[in-house]
Amino acid sequence: MQVNEIIWSETEQKIAEVAFQKAYERETSTLIQEIRESAGAITELDQIWRLHDFLSARRHEIDGKYDFSYSVLLFVFATFIKQGWLQPTDLEGLAKDKLAKIISLARM
Amino acid sequence: MQVNEIIWSETEQKIAEVAFQKAYERETSTLIQEIRESAGAITELDQIWRLHDFLSARRHEIDGKYDFSYSVLLFVFATFIKQGWLQPTDLEGLAKDKLAKIISLARM
Repeated sequence: MQVNEIIWSETEQKIAEVAFQKAYERETSTLIQEIRESAGAITELDQIWRLHDFLSARRHEIDGKYDFSYSVLLFVFATFIKQGWLQPTDLEGLAKDKLAKIISLARM
Repeated sequence: MQVNEIIWSETEQKIAEVAFQKAYERETSTLIQEIRESAGAITELDQIWRLHDFLSARRHEIDGKYDFSYSVLLFVFATFIKQGWLQPTDLEGLAKDKLAKIISLARM
C-alpha cells in the first residue's frame, strides 16, 4: 500500500476529522495546563527564558505536526498514537489496512 | 562631553551598579508577575502563541538592554528612566553633568 495513494471513503474522512480534532484538543489542553502550572511556579528570570525555549520547541513541533493532508495522514495518526494523544480505538471504523499501517508506523 | 570617554569615579561606579541592579530587579519582577498573570488566564492555544511572541520580544529587548559597559551606561540609564525602571533619585550621587545627560537622553 502506497501511503500517498490511499483512498479515504467519506465515512473514513469523517472518522479521521473527528480523531484529528480529538488529538488536537487533548494535546493543546495538556499544553495549556502545563504552561499555566509552570508559569505559576516562576520566580526567576531564567525560568521565564526556559519557558520561552520550551514554547519555541512546542510551537515548532505542533505547527509541523497538525497537517490534515490525506497524503500524510497515516503518519500523522501514527505520531498521535505514539505520543499518546490518540488510542487505536479512536480510529475505529477506518479500513483494517489503514489501521494496521498506522499502528505499525507508531511502533517505529 | 563625549559619552564614550566619561570617567566614572569609584563612588559613581558603586552608585551605578546599585541602580543597574535595582532596574533589573524591578523589570524582571514585573515581567515575572505579568507572565504569571497572563499564563494563568490562558484557555486557548492562540493565547499560548501570543505569550510566546511576547516572550521572544521581551527576551530580545532585555538581552540587549542590560549592558553594564561604562561606554554606554548613560544611554542605558536613560532607557531605564524612560521606561520607568529608575527614577532620577536612584542616580543621586552621580556627577551633575552625567545626571543631566541621562535625563536629557531620557526625554528624547
